[in-house]
Amino acid sequence: MRYLEDFEAEQKFGSSRVCVESARIKSFAIEFDPQPFHLDEDSARDSLFKGLAASGWHTAALTMRLLVQSELKPAGGIIGGGLDEMRWPRPVRPGDELHVESEVLEVRRSKSRPDQGVIKVRTTTLNQNEQPVQMFVGNLIVLRRPVSSGKAEG
Amino acid sequence: MRYLEDFEAEQKFGSSRVCVESARIKSFAIEFDPQPFHLDEDSARDSLFKGLAASGWHTAALTMRLLVQSELKPAGGIIGGGLDEMRWPRPVRPGDELHVESEVLEVRRSKSRPDQGVIKVRTTTLNQNEQPVQMFVGNLIVLRRPVSSGKAEG
Repeated sequence: MRYLEDFEAEQKFGSSRVCVESARIKSFAIEFDPQPFHLDEDSARDSLFKGLAASGWHTAALTMRLLVQSELKPAGGIIGGGLDEMRWPRPVRPGDELHVESEVLEVRRSKSRPDQGVIKVRTTTLNQNEQPVQMFVGNLIVLRRPVSSGKAEG
Repeated sequence: MRYLEDFEAEQKFGSSRVCVESARIKSFAIEFDPQPFHLDEDSARDSLFKGLAASGWHTAALTMRLLVQSELKPAGGIIGGGLDEMRWPRPVRPGDELHVESEVLEVRRSKSRPDQGVIKVRTTTLNQNEQPVQMFVGNLIVLRRPVSSGKAEG
């Protein structure tokens, strides 16, 4: 578990891998994103995606699981106040194997909440060919190290 | 179905409503966001959320369903190249009933793709007390009206 004091800019964290199954692409889409190009190969061929593609929100949800299981492990959990930007540069296809690379861009203490801070993290989701399929920059709320267990540094 | 030419800034679109069930909050979290405050009431009480809360990605996925079912209906489907920003200003709780309000902020033709354009849409997800629980600004790819069926306007 890492407190705010344990993070610094340019730290990088990898993840394990997850395979995206065709059946789960379709069942996720039935519940959350019922559009032809996420539901059916034939309809998908005639769409902008030119083939079955996972909903971007399915990719986002899978990315979250990889993040939670990664070594990022901020104290208090991964709690995002928001994202500065999000991109889906190419589709996720059935059978793709995804992994995540996170990089800390910025660490700052909260002025109003002395027990908290915020880290800005760029999270890139890549397929098995190391091509980015999703990128977002998130702002995570992270607890500071409790004073009782803290030490003056230096 | 609306082509690029049918959209203009300040247009607004509502949605139907969806109830967020406690059991689905937990099962979504088991698959995609396995953190205590999304999984278990007791653990959630001691977290920053001070009670069980839906994963932000669950809220995003439900928002997508409401958007797809809404009257927005861009030609070619709702295909997002990305988001300019995303915020989760307050938690979604078990039993909350969500709906979506979308507002078109900007419409522009693509310079490189004469058959397409992009609309910038602010999508706000509100609970039953009309409090925003999520907001994002997305850029959607929309087809232009085919020339064969087009008419000069005015």
